[in-house]
Amino acid sequence: MGHDLLITDTTLLPLDPDLPELITDGYLAVKNGKIAALGPMADLAEPGAVTVIDGSGRLLMPGLVNTHTHAPMTLFRGLADDLPLMTWLNEHIFPAEAKSVNPEMVYWCAKLAAAEMILSGTTCAADGYFLEDSAAEAFVECGLRAVAAQGIIDFPAPGVPDPAQNIAAAADFIGRWQGKSPLLSPAVFCHSPYTCSAETLRQAKEMARRHNVKFFVHLAETKTEVSQVQEQQGTTPVRYLDRLGILDSNTICVHCVWLEEEEISILARSGARVATCPQSNMKLGSGIAPVREMLAAGIPVGLGTDSAASNNRLDLFFEMDLGAKLQKVKDRDPAALPAAAVLQMATFGGARVLGLENSIGSLAIGKEADIILLDTRQPHLHPFYLPGLLVHAASGADVATVIIGGMIVMRDRELLTCDVNRIMAEVNRRAEEFRDTGWRTTPGGRRSAPRCF
Amino acid sequence: MGHDLLITDTTLLPLDPDLPELITDGYLAVKNGKIAALGPMADLAEPGAVTVIDGSGRLLMPGLVNTHTHAPMTLFRGLADDLPLMTWLNEHIFPAEAKSVNPEMVYWCAKLAAAEMILSGTTCAADGYFLEDSAAEAFVECGLRAVAAQGIIDFPAPGVPDPAQNIAAAADFIGRWQGKSPLLSPAVFCHSPYTCSAETLRQAKEMARRHNVKFFVHLAETKTEVSQVQEQQGTTPVRYLDRLGILDSNTICVHCVWLEEEEISILARSGARVATCPQSNMKLGSGIAPVREMLAAGIPVGLGTDSAASNNRLDLFFEMDLGAKLQKVKDRDPAALPAAAVLQMATFGGARVLGLENSIGSLAIGKEADIILLDTRQPHLHPFYLPGLLVHAASGADVATVIIGGMIVMRDRELLTCDVNRIMAEVNRRAEEFRDTGWRTTPGGRRSAPRCF
Repeated sequence: MGHDLLITDTTLLPLDPDLPELITDGYLAVKNGKIAALGPMADLAEPGAVTVIDGSGRLLMPGLVNTHTHAPMTLFRGLADDLPLMTWLNEHIFPAEAKSVNPEMVYWCAKLAAAEMILSGTTCAADGYFLEDSAAEAFVECGLRAVAAQGIIDFPAPGVPDPAQNIAAAADFIGRWQGKSPLLSPAVFCHSPYTCSAETLRQAKEMARRHNVKFFVHLAETKTEVSQVQEQQGTTPVRYLDRLGILDSNTICVHCVWLEEEEISILARSGARVATCPQSNMKLGSGIAPVREMLAAGIPVGLGTDSAASNNRLDLFFEMDLGAKLQKVKDRDPAALPAAAVLQMATFGGARVLGLENSIGSLAIGKEADIILLDTRQPHLHPFYLPGLLVHAASGADVATVIIGGMIVMRDRELLTCDVNRIMAEVNRRAEEFRDTGWRTTPGGRRSAPRCF
Repeated sequence: MGHDLLITDTTLLPLDPDLPELITDGYLAVKNGKIAALGPMADLAEPGAVTVIDGSGRLLMPGLVNTHTHAPMTLFRGLADDLPLMTWLNEHIFPAEAKSVNPEMVYWCAKLAAAEMILSGTTCAADGYFLEDSAAEAFVECGLRAVAAQGIIDFPAPGVPDPAQNIAAAADFIGRWQGKSPLLSPAVFCHSPYTCSAETLRQAKEMARRHNVKFFVHLAETKTEVSQVQEQQGTTPVRYLDRLGILDSNTICVHCVWLEEEEISILARSGARVATCPQSNMKLGSGIAPVREMLAAGIPVGLGTDSAASNNRLDLFFEMDLGAKLQKVKDRDPAALPAAAVLQMATFGGARVLGLENSIGSLAIGKEADIILLDTRQPHLHPFYLPGLLVHAASGADVATVIIGGMIVMRDRELLTCDVNRIMAEVNRRAEEFRDTGWRTTPGGRRSAPRCF
């Protein structure tokens, strides 16, 4: 029989509730895409396998789970930084989207995101965009596990010119993808309580319930949003969604920066999950989410990178580091959100947010083999006292090898499932029309920088 | 005669006040350690050189300047994270220092820091520690440019058991290093206004003036410090140093988190410089420095990583990213501290803080050839609209090649001036006695993690 894949002589960090121990000289075996065995090398009974990877000088841990991104927006990475939020959205992002979003753009730019996420150790991502079929295709082809959500908004959107069709279009998307690939779970993304009517929110949630899929919504991201919802609905965003009957354990609320204490209790009671995006909230000046308080209330909280337009990376190692540091400075308490807690948020916790905690998020027998190996033979990872190092010293660039569902998608930093040069060329070609927004091109191949002196 | 080194077909970002343009197809030539010529490829007059580097797929920019670190503290990286500041210092860092600090430890652990800094694109670092001779030796051997400051504190310290000798010991250090290596400038580091008496501060500054060297001091890092100084000296830290006559253009104040508006004016008037350490201030829960306000007041501000014990990286790319994002979230304004401003802080601005702006910090003819080349052929660096990408998407791991004073110290990520495996082994050996502080070792090579579920 033998294993399909065996990783030997490695340091194992299972991050599993039942196996919280670090195994300093361990192995992990994969069969039919799932973890078949793991433990100290001394206990390795069956040393044969189709593929054997020498794990020495590596740390093996569960792949990271990105609970919020808009993958195709890699096209707008750094297109218009350092601008007030409304200028950024209305004068840059929205017009750029209007000009460029089509199925091919979504496909190639989602592939760029998938490549970047795999390169930085993410093995499962929750995405939300329009024309999501093309994104889903891109993820599956790259071998990235994904919860892909079709966007719903009460405006004409790419692929859905008539907003009256937005829920039907999402239902069709779910129909096309449910059961199609073991890597992909379709879902619904209602943009927000200020861009979707009460009717849209209610019906979309109803449809998601009928199909038994996840329902995402941006919620309480900015103070402006809170005021707007308060004005239009007479209550705060969380209370409003609660009143609409939308909050349950299949609803993922994204951001949750501006919450009253009582709203944290409402979220906790409802069973709703939260995706927090510390870097996006910092970069857009939105605020600091009460992550410590939400965790204390028992709310499952995962980490999200948000899109490359508002981060500008899709690297969850940075997100762990920042997520922890931001809580520490918020509370002026270095003990706030310890490294172990953010490691959990980025793995098992993120899986729980997406309802996938029984299949991914930790290393345990029977779970999907979603695994990353870090190259620990580097100066910035020495000495290695505690796994907190992974949070505050490692980065996505330290990830050497990535396995998803038992398939090696990256080995020694070489992507095996996608043609990264082709992808970058396709994205660059589409980026051409947005160039020179902040730089002037001068003769002789020069472009002027914005003043920095 | 020909150049010593020529880099061709590359993207040049000079970041120089006189050359703020991006040159998309450029070259740079080095002769006798200095930049001899640079410009568009079309203008390259003399294509010959002893060494030619093909710069295609690379972005060439000035090396980064780290204005504050304690290099030997790499030994304590992640030793005791997530603890209240006083527990961390008194129960972990100070006892660990008492146990381990000696000239060999300083030498090897500073080498680890130097390797890490070079690997992440830093070409000049301002360091402060005890037994600084050994750190200075390590930097020079690694080819890293450094301002190395001997620590002064009114307690028995490594190498200076009698505090009455602390200023004389620093003067001796300066005597040994002044004029010894073109890479190294000796300096003085008075620990802080609460660990050094008024007399020590005054005499140390007097001695620094006599030797014409820089004077560093930790200042206004925590609220506790402000209260303590207020209580002991009847005024705030900045006003206290001003009263002592210590603030001038050769004084570098490190941290400056807790400043009153008037103290910003005092600093600006005095000509003093500031090293800000956003990640350390976040991780230790100290607070958010008024960087935007200090820059607006005309104070030269540079970025510092602080030590690996309170960061836990020495990567200035992260520091740029975080420095910018932290100001944005502080002011809830995405336009706060634009990318161009932090790029400047990490290069020319940092050089100005250290008084080296005429020799390093930008690409200009006649300046030292302190240069880094980034590998831009990576998904997370696509598309490339604006140099803000270097701040919000790049990391130290993207640096491929590093040149300091015309010497190639790293090429295609291979360190050429230090034996990195030997360094890691030496540091690991010293780390052994601090292991298992947070993990229990169980039979079979297992160690228990702190609870994260």
